[in-house]
Amino acid sequence: MNDCVFCKIAQGEIPADKIYEDDNFFAFLDINPVNYGHALVTPKNHYENIYSLPDEILCNIGLLVKKISIAVKQGVNANGINIIMNNDGAAGQIVPHAHFHIIPRFANDGLWHWPGKSYPNKEEPAKIAEKIKGSF
Amino acid sequence: MNDCVFCKIAQGEIPADKIYEDDNFFAFLDINPVNYGHALVTPKNHYENIYSLPDEILCNIGLLVKKISIAVKQGVNANGINIIMNNDGAAGQIVPHAHFHIIPRFANDGLWHWPGKSYPNKEEPAKIAEKIKGSF
Repeated sequence: MNDCVFCKIAQGEIPADKIYEDDNFFAFLDINPVNYGHALVTPKNHYENIYSLPDEILCNIGLLVKKISIAVKQGVNANGINIIMNNDGAAGQIVPHAHFHIIPRFANDGLWHWPGKSYPNKEEPAKIAEKIKGSF
Repeated sequence: MNDCVFCKIAQGEIPADKIYEDDNFFAFLDINPVNYGHALVTPKNHYENIYSLPDEILCNIGLLVKKISIAVKQGVNANGINIIMNNDGAAGQIVPHAHFHIIPRFANDGLWHWPGKSYPNKEEPAKIAEKIKGSF
């Protein structure tokens, strides 16, 4: 897409600190990292989000996400890795070009995870499960 | 593993609100959902995290994560989906059996994303990128 930042990085029109590149994918450092070493993994071709990622691309980017996760963890001596993919603006997706965040984590780095809550009653989970099963 | 909660759910020893199951994988509702409909997708066999997931499992679970994301989004009328995989305790992984969180999101649901920060100087990203590239 003409106005897509990640397409422009893929085409070399915008610089980035790339850590990996092949014919179909690339990975680079997020310019506003949650922790230093926070990387993004993305296909070179433009797909908006997980819903539209073709199966072959999805399979291969999964293997690459594993490879990058291991390299980031080792490269910055992290204690753990969060893999995060935000789909749609409501989920915090800022650039509408499908990408995975690889976030290195350190013991006691102070980042908070979203708290869980309880369902309002015992029957509710089964009702919601039925709605989801009806959506396949 | 004998003491693994997700292995016990896989074997039917602990009940769960399952939304999907096949020979190798299953998905079920998190009992402490960030938002209602929050699901977990996991292989039946025990692998601790992304680092140890065999490529074939990783490829196929990626396709399933896409399928479950679409169904959860539709099933609970969400506006977006976060896909999150926590690897290691330092990254918030509570059950050491590899799993993906599928979290439905709603416009203005009040969940905060971790803020980004700046690198301390212009040279630092390239230095960190080199360390990561040296870790493949």
